[in-house]
Amino acid sequence: MADICLLGTGGMMPLKDRFLTSLYAEYNGKAVLIDCGEGTQVAIAKHGLKLSRIELILITHCHADHVAGLPGLLLSIGNSSRTQPLYIAAPESCLKTVESLMSVCGALPYEVKTVGFPDDISYTFRADMVDPMLSVRTMPLSHRVSCLGYSLMLKKKPPFLPNNARAIGVPVELWKKLHNGETVVLEDGTRVPPEAVTGDRRPSMKITYTTDTLPLDDIFIFAENADLFVCEGMYGLPEKKESMNEKMHMLMQDACRIAKEANAKRLWLTHYSPAEKDPSVYAEELRKIFPDAVVTEDGAKITL
Amino acid sequence: MADICLLGTGGMMPLKDRFLTSLYAEYNGKAVLIDCGEGTQVAIAKHGLKLSRIELILITHCHADHVAGLPGLLLSIGNSSRTQPLYIAAPESCLKTVESLMSVCGALPYEVKTVGFPDDISYTFRADMVDPMLSVRTMPLSHRVSCLGYSLMLKKKPPFLPNNARAIGVPVELWKKLHNGETVVLEDGTRVPPEAVTGDRRPSMKITYTTDTLPLDDIFIFAENADLFVCEGMYGLPEKKESMNEKMHMLMQDACRIAKEANAKRLWLTHYSPAEKDPSVYAEELRKIFPDAVVTEDGAKITL
Repeated sequence: MADICLLGTGGMMPLKDRFLTSLYAEYNGKAVLIDCGEGTQVAIAKHGLKLSRIELILITHCHADHVAGLPGLLLSIGNSSRTQPLYIAAPESCLKTVESLMSVCGALPYEVKTVGFPDDISYTFRADMVDPMLSVRTMPLSHRVSCLGYSLMLKKKPPFLPNNARAIGVPVELWKKLHNGETVVLEDGTRVPPEAVTGDRRPSMKITYTTDTLPLDDIFIFAENADLFVCEGMYGLPEKKESMNEKMHMLMQDACRIAKEANAKRLWLTHYSPAEKDPSVYAEELRKIFPDAVVTEDGAKITL
Repeated sequence: MADICLLGTGGMMPLKDRFLTSLYAEYNGKAVLIDCGEGTQVAIAKHGLKLSRIELILITHCHADHVAGLPGLLLSIGNSSRTQPLYIAAPESCLKTVESLMSVCGALPYEVKTVGFPDDISYTFRADMVDPMLSVRTMPLSHRVSCLGYSLMLKKKPPFLPNNARAIGVPVELWKKLHNGETVVLEDGTRVPPEAVTGDRRPSMKITYTTDTLPLDDIFIFAENADLFVCEGMYGLPEKKESMNEKMHMLMQDACRIAKEANAKRLWLTHYSPAEKDPSVYAEELRKIFPDAVVTEDGAKITL
C-alpha cells in the first residue's frame, strides 16, 4: 500500500498560493520524495506529513524549481534528530549541482549518500532503504538539461492460498515465511516452495512521474498501466503549443493523450505555469481526451 | 522616506505559518533586501511588494535560513525581465557559498555583482545603486560563522531656507541645485555655497538589523538612535539563556536591553525559534524593559 501526496502543482517559481511540484509517497512508514523545490519542506508540514520518514529523494533535474529546496529540507531533517543515512538520487550530471547546494548545509548529523543515475539510458534501482519490494525505474526525458522520469514499482505478494497450505500440512507459523517467498522444510523433511501455497503473481503497483519534458512517444510505454501517472501540463491553451516546444515542455492535452495511450488508471496533471491562474477551467475539456484526468491542486492525496 | 516590511519573523526553518526573517526596505521605488531564506520570494509576493525593485541584497551570514532562497529569488527576478545589474553583498568569507548556491541559476538575463565586506571589521558602503543618499554600515557580530549586522543610513537634506535664498538674490531655478549640496554662481559672479541657504544638518534616518549573534555590548553603539532596530530574539523564556549562549543567539530580553541602551526609537523583535509558537505572550513583559518593543508578526510594515 502507498499513501501519496502531491505536495505542490506549480512550475517555474513558488507562488503565494501554489507550492512547487513535488511528490511524497509513503510505504509502511517510510517515504520517497520526488523533487524538492523552494518551499517543499513547508508543503510537507502543511499537508500533515513527516520529514523524518523520508529515506530517498529522487531529483528529476537540476532546475531550481525542482532542487533549490534541498538544503533547507536536509537541515530540517537534521533537526528532527535523524542519524541514519539518507539517499539522494539524481541524473549523474546533476550531482555536482546537488553538492553545490549542500555546501550551505555544513555538517549534518547523518550521512547523505548520493546515487547518480545514467543521464541517457533507462536504469532500475532497488529502493530497499524504503521497502524491500520497491524499485525505481528511470527514463531519460527531453528537456533543456538532463532530466529523468521516474516510476516507483512496488511488487505485490501473490495471494496466499491457506487451503493449499493446510492440505500439504504446513503449520500456521510457517505461512508468513512462505508468503514472503521463502522455501520451508517441514518436520518430516518435506520441502515446500512458496509457489505451492501462493496464487498467480500480481502486477506491481506503479506510480509514474514525468515532468519538464517534450511529450515524447516513449513516455506512454514508460507509464504503461500506471496506477497513478503524474505528468506536467504547463498550459491548457492549445495556442501555447509552439512556445512549449521551444521551452521543451508540454500542454495538458499532450499529457492526456499520453495517459490514454499508456492505459494509465488515472492522470494527475501538475507543474502549471504561474500564468495559469485557474487550471481547473480546462478539466471538462481534458476529460474528453482522457476521462480519468484530474487537474490537481496542491495537497492532492490518494491511497493505492 | 523609506517603506519597510519585515517579510518574515522565523529562525532556523520556514514554517507553514511563519516565513524566515528578512527585511525589505524601499527608497523612492528602489529596494534593499536583507537576508533571503527559503520562501522569501513568496513572502515578497504575499505582502504585495515587488521583486523587480530590488537593487541590492545584503546577506548577514551563510546559514541556510538566511541565504537558501537566493537562487529562486534571482531566477524569478530574471523572469521579471530585468537586464540591469543587481548587487549582492555579504561577508567576504560567505561569497563562495553564495556562488555555490547560484550554480543552480544557469545564465541569468542580468549581471550579478557580488561585493565582499570584511568579516572582522566595520565597513561603510555607498549604496547609490539604490539611492545616492543611502549608505550601509556593517558590524561584525558573534555567531558560529562570520556574521554581519547592517545599518541602512539615509542622509536627510538639511532644511532649505527660501528667505535666505531670496535675500542673496538666488533665482528659484537654482534652488534645487543648492538644496542638493551644489555651489552655484549667479549672473553677477557671486558664488553661493549650499550652506548659505540651508539650515542645520539633520541626523540620517537609520535602520539597524542584527540577527544571529550573542548580545554583544557593541551592538548598542551600532544601533544608537536607530529609527528602527530589528533584532533577533530566539526565545522569551529566561531559562533558555544558557542554550542561547551555546548556540550564539540571544533572548528577546537581551534585545530589549540593547534597544534601551541604544536609545532606539523602536525595536522589532524577530527570528523566533520554531518552538516559540506564540511569541506575543511575552510582549507585556518585554515592554517593561523597553516600552517601544514590538513582538512583530510576518509582514509588519512602517513608513519612516
